[in-house]
Amino acid sequence: MTIAPAPDGRAQLAQAVEHCCATEGSSPITREDADLVARLLKAVADPVRLQILGIVRCSPGMEVCACDLPAPLGIAQPTVSHHLKILVGAGLLTRERRGQWAWFTLEPDRLSLARRALEV
Amino acid sequence: MTIAPAPDGRAQLAQAVEHCCATEGSSPITREDADLVARLLKAVADPVRLQILGIVRCSPGMEVCACDLPAPLGIAQPTVSHHLKILVGAGLLTRERRGQWAWFTLEPDRLSLARRALEV
Repeated sequence: MTIAPAPDGRAQLAQAVEHCCATEGSSPITREDADLVARLLKAVADPVRLQILGIVRCSPGMEVCACDLPAPLGIAQPTVSHHLKILVGAGLLTRERRGQWAWFTLEPDRLSLARRALEV
Repeated sequence: MTIAPAPDGRAQLAQAVEHCCATEGSSPITREDADLVARLLKAVADPVRLQILGIVRCSPGMEVCACDLPAPLGIAQPTVSHHLKILVGAGLLTRERRGQWAWFTLEPDRLSLARRALEV
Protein backbone atom coordinates (compact mmCIF):
# COMPACT_ATOMS: atom_id res chain seq x y z
CA MET A 1 0.00 0.00 0.00
CA THR A 2 1.46 3.33 -1.03
CA ILE A 3 0.51 6.37 0.97
CA ALA A 4 1.46 9.99 0.85
CA PRO A 5 2.95 11.69 3.89
CA ALA A 6 0.51 13.54 6.16
CA PRO A 7 -1.70 15.46 6.14
CA ASP A 8 -3.18 14.12 2.87
CA GLY A 9 -2.30 10.54 3.66
CA ARG A 10 -4.06 10.52 7.01
CA ALA A 11 -7.09 8.51 5.97
CA GLN A 12 -4.99 5.89 4.25
CA LEU A 13 -2.53 5.63 7.13
CA ALA A 14 -5.37 5.35 9.62
CA GLN A 15 -6.60 2.39 7.58
CA ALA A 16 -3.11 0.89 7.41
CA VAL A 17 -2.60 0.84 11.16
CA GLU A 18 -6.03 -0.63 11.91
CA HIS A 19 -5.91 -4.14 13.30
CA CYS A 20 -5.48 -6.59 10.46
CA CYS A 21 -4.23 -10.02 11.34
CA ALA A 22 -5.50 -11.61 8.14
CA THR A 23 -2.09 -12.94 7.13
CA GLU A 24 -0.52 -14.76 10.02
CA GLY A 25 3.29 -14.63 9.96
CA SER A 26 3.43 -11.41 7.99
CA SER A 27 3.30 -7.94 9.49
CA PRO A 28 -0.09 -6.18 9.44
CA ILE A 29 1.79 -2.96 8.68
CA THR A 30 3.92 -2.49 5.57
CA ARG A 31 7.45 -1.16 5.81
CA GLU A 32 6.36 2.08 4.13
CA ASP A 33 3.52 2.66 6.59
CA ALA A 34 5.79 1.64 9.48
CA ASP A 35 8.27 4.33 8.36
CA LEU A 36 5.56 6.96 8.63
CA VAL A 37 4.28 5.81 12.04
CA ALA A 38 7.86 5.52 13.36
CA ARG A 39 8.52 9.17 12.41
CA LEU A 40 5.37 10.17 14.31
CA LEU A 41 6.35 8.13 17.37
CA LYS A 42 9.90 9.53 17.33
CA ALA A 43 8.45 13.03 17.56
CA VAL A 44 6.45 11.98 20.64
CA ALA A 45 9.20 9.86 22.25
CA ASP A 46 10.69 12.66 24.33
CA PRO A 47 9.80 13.52 27.94
CA VAL A 48 9.44 17.28 27.34
CA ARG A 49 7.29 16.75 24.24
CA LEU A 50 5.09 14.26 26.12
CA GLN A 51 4.61 16.90 28.81
CA ILE A 52 3.83 19.60 26.23
CA LEU A 53 1.20 17.35 24.61
CA GLY A 54 -0.25 16.70 28.07
CA ILE A 55 -0.55 20.43 28.80
CA VAL A 56 -2.11 21.21 25.41
CA ARG A 57 -4.57 18.32 25.78
CA CYS A 58 -5.71 19.67 29.15
CA SER A 59 -6.02 23.30 28.04
CA PRO A 60 -9.33 24.92 26.96
CA GLY A 61 -9.86 24.23 23.25
CA MET A 62 -6.76 22.02 23.32
CA GLU A 63 -4.64 25.11 22.56
CA VAL A 64 -1.91 26.97 24.42
CA CYS A 65 0.15 30.11 24.03
CA ALA A 66 3.89 29.40 23.76
CA CYS A 67 4.32 31.94 26.58
CA ASP A 68 2.48 29.68 29.03
CA LEU A 69 4.78 26.67 28.63
CA PRO A 70 8.22 27.53 30.11
CA ALA A 71 6.93 27.92 33.69
CA PRO A 72 5.19 24.55 34.15
CA LEU A 73 7.93 22.72 32.21
CA GLY A 74 10.76 24.48 34.06
CA ILE A 75 12.70 25.08 30.85
CA ALA A 76 13.65 28.16 28.82
CA GLN A 77 11.55 29.56 25.95
CA PRO A 78 14.14 28.65 23.22
CA THR A 79 14.09 25.02 24.37
CA VAL A 80 10.28 25.03 24.41
CA SER A 81 10.32 26.47 20.87
CA HIS A 82 12.67 23.70 19.72
CA HIS A 83 10.27 21.01 20.96
CA LEU A 84 7.20 22.81 19.60
CA LYS A 85 8.84 22.94 16.17
CA ILE A 86 9.31 19.16 16.17
CA LEU A 87 5.68 18.57 17.21
CA VAL A 88 4.44 20.96 14.49
CA GLY A 89 6.72 19.28 11.95
CA ALA A 90 5.17 15.92 12.79
CA GLY A 91 1.68 17.39 12.39
CA LEU A 92 0.81 16.79 16.05
CA LEU A 93 0.31 20.51 16.72
CA THR A 94 -0.67 23.37 14.45
CA ARG A 95 0.79 26.86 14.94
CA GLU A 96 -1.06 30.16 14.66
CA ARG A 97 0.34 33.61 15.35
CA ARG A 98 -1.86 35.88 17.48
CA GLY A 99 -0.27 39.27 18.09
CA GLN A 100 3.09 38.88 19.78
CA TRP A 101 2.77 35.18 20.54
CA ALA A 102 2.34 31.90 18.73
CA TRP A 103 -0.48 29.61 19.79
CA PHE A 104 -0.42 25.85 19.36
CA THR A 105 -3.43 23.58 18.88
CA LEU A 106 -3.49 19.80 19.27
CA GLU A 107 -4.28 17.67 16.20
CA PRO A 108 -5.99 14.76 17.95
CA ASP A 109 -6.40 12.69 14.77
CA ARG A 110 -2.66 12.68 14.25
CA LEU A 111 -2.00 11.55 17.82
CA SER A 112 -4.62 8.83 17.35
CA LEU A 113 -2.67 7.46 14.38
CA ALA A 114 0.39 6.93 16.55
CA ARG A 115 -1.75 5.40 19.29
CA ARG A 116 -3.54 2.98 16.97
CA ALA A 117 -0.21 1.56 15.80
CA LEU A 118 0.35 0.45 19.41
CA GLU A 119 -2.97 -1.33 19.84
CA VAL A 120 -2.81 -4.93 20.96
CA MET B 1 4.81 10.88 41.97
CA THR B 2 7.87 8.70 42.23
CA ILE B 3 7.80 5.39 40.42
CA ALA B 4 10.26 2.58 40.00
CA PRO B 5 11.30 1.45 36.52
CA ALA B 6 9.36 -1.45 35.04
CA PRO B 7 8.40 -4.16 35.62
CA ASP B 8 7.62 -3.37 39.28
CA GLY B 9 6.46 0.15 38.55
CA ARG B 10 3.89 -0.86 35.94
CA ALA B 11 0.82 -0.30 38.06
CA GLN B 12 2.01 3.11 39.19
CA LEU B 13 2.99 4.18 35.69
CA ALA B 14 -0.33 3.01 34.32
CA GLN B 15 -1.97 5.27 36.86
CA ALA B 16 0.35 8.15 35.99
CA VAL B 17 -0.48 8.13 32.30
CA GLU B 18 -4.24 7.93 32.85
CA HIS B 19 -6.11 11.04 31.79
CA CYS B 20 -5.84 13.63 34.50
CA CYS B 21 -6.59 17.19 33.54
CA ALA B 22 -7.27 18.30 37.10
CA THR B 23 -4.67 21.07 37.00
CA GLU B 24 -5.12 23.17 33.90
CA GLY B 25 -1.84 24.67 32.69
CA SER B 26 0.33 22.00 34.25
CA SER B 27 1.24 18.71 32.61
CA PRO B 28 -0.82 15.67 33.65
CA ILE B 29 2.40 13.64 33.48
CA THR B 30 5.43 14.39 35.67
CA ARG B 31 8.88 14.69 34.15
CA GLU B 32 9.91 11.44 35.84
CA ASP B 33 6.95 9.51 34.41
CA ALA B 34 7.47 11.18 31.03
CA ASP B 35 11.08 9.93 31.03
CA LEU B 36 9.85 6.37 31.49
CA VAL B 37 7.15 6.58 28.80
CA ALA B 38 9.58 8.28 26.40
CA ARG B 39 12.03 5.36 26.77
CA LEU B 40 9.19 2.96 25.96
CA LEU B 41 8.10 4.99 22.91
CA LYS B 42 11.70 5.24 21.65
CA ALA B 43 11.91 1.46 21.66
CA VAL B 44 8.77 1.30 19.51
CA ALA B 45 9.60 4.25 17.25
CA ASP B 46 11.37 2.22 14.57
CA PRO B 47 9.78 0.78 11.42
CA VAL B 48 11.29 -2.70 11.81
CA ARG B 49 10.31 -2.91 15.47
CA LEU B 50 6.76 -1.77 14.64
CA GLN B 51 6.60 -4.56 12.06
CA ILE B 52 7.97 -7.12 14.54
CA LEU B 53 5.35 -6.10 17.11
CA GLY B 54 2.68 -6.42 14.40
CA ILE B 55 3.80 -9.94 13.52
CA VAL B 56 3.97 -11.06 17.16
CA ARG B 57 0.53 -9.56 17.85
CA CYS B 58 -0.96 -11.52 14.96
CA SER B 59 0.73 -14.84 15.82
CA PRO B 60 -1.00 -17.63 17.81
CA GLY B 61 -0.50 -16.97 21.53
CA MET B 62 1.12 -13.64 20.62
CA GLU B 63 4.48 -15.45 20.38
CA VAL B 64 6.96 -16.08 17.57
CA CYS B 65 10.16 -17.99 16.99
CA ALA B 66 13.08 -15.71 16.06
CA CYS B 67 13.59 -18.01 13.07
CA ASP B 68 10.26 -16.97 11.56
CA LEU B 69 11.01 -13.24 11.42
CA PRO B 70 13.79 -12.65 8.82
CA ALA B 71 11.68 -13.82 5.84
CA PRO B 72 8.61 -11.57 6.26
CA LEU B 73 10.77 -8.61 7.29
CA GLY B 74 13.27 -9.11 4.48
CA ILE B 75 16.23 -8.57 6.81
CA ALA B 76 19.03 -10.78 8.15
CA GLN B 77 18.84 -12.71 11.44
CA PRO B 78 21.52 -10.57 13.22
CA THR B 79 19.52 -7.41 12.43
CA VAL B 80 16.33 -9.08 13.66
CA SER B 81 18.16 -10.06 16.86
CA HIS B 82 19.32 -6.48 17.40
CA HIS B 83 15.74 -5.19 17.22
CA LEU B 84 14.39 -8.03 19.39
CA LYS B 85 16.98 -7.19 22.06
CA ILE B 86 15.74 -3.57 22.20
CA LEU B 87 12.09 -4.69 22.47
CA VAL B 88 12.99 -7.17 25.25
CA GLY B 89 15.03 -4.47 27.01
CA ALA B 90 11.99 -2.20 27.00
CA GLY B 91 9.84 -4.98 28.41
CA LEU B 92 7.63 -5.10 25.31
CA LEU B 93 8.59 -8.71 24.56
CA THR B 94 9.77 -11.53 26.80
CA ARG B 95 12.33 -14.07 25.58
CA GLU B 96 12.30 -17.82 26.21
CA ARG B 97 14.75 -20.38 24.83
CA ARG B 98 13.16 -23.52 23.37
CA GLY B 99 15.77 -25.93 22.01
CA GLN B 100 17.84 -24.25 19.33
CA TRP B 101 15.71 -21.13 19.00
CA ALA B 102 14.55 -18.22 21.12
CA TRP B 103 10.84 -17.47 21.23
CA PHE B 104 9.40 -14.04 21.91
CA THR B 105 6.06 -13.25 23.54
CA LEU B 106 4.25 -9.92 23.50
CA GLU B 107 3.70 -8.11 26.80
CA PRO B 108 0.43 -6.35 25.96
CA ASP B 109 0.24 -4.43 29.25
CA ARG B 110 3.56 -2.77 28.49
CA LEU B 111 2.42 -1.75 25.01
CA SER B 112 -0.79 -0.39 26.55
CA LEU B 113 1.25 1.91 28.79
CA ALA B 114 2.86 3.54 25.78
CA ARG B 115 -0.51 3.77 24.04
CA ARG B 116 -2.28 5.36 27.00
CA ALA B 117 0.30 8.16 27.09
CA LEU B 118 -0.93 9.12 23.60
CA GLU B 119 -4.62 9.26 24.46
CA VAL B 120 -6.40 12.48 23.64
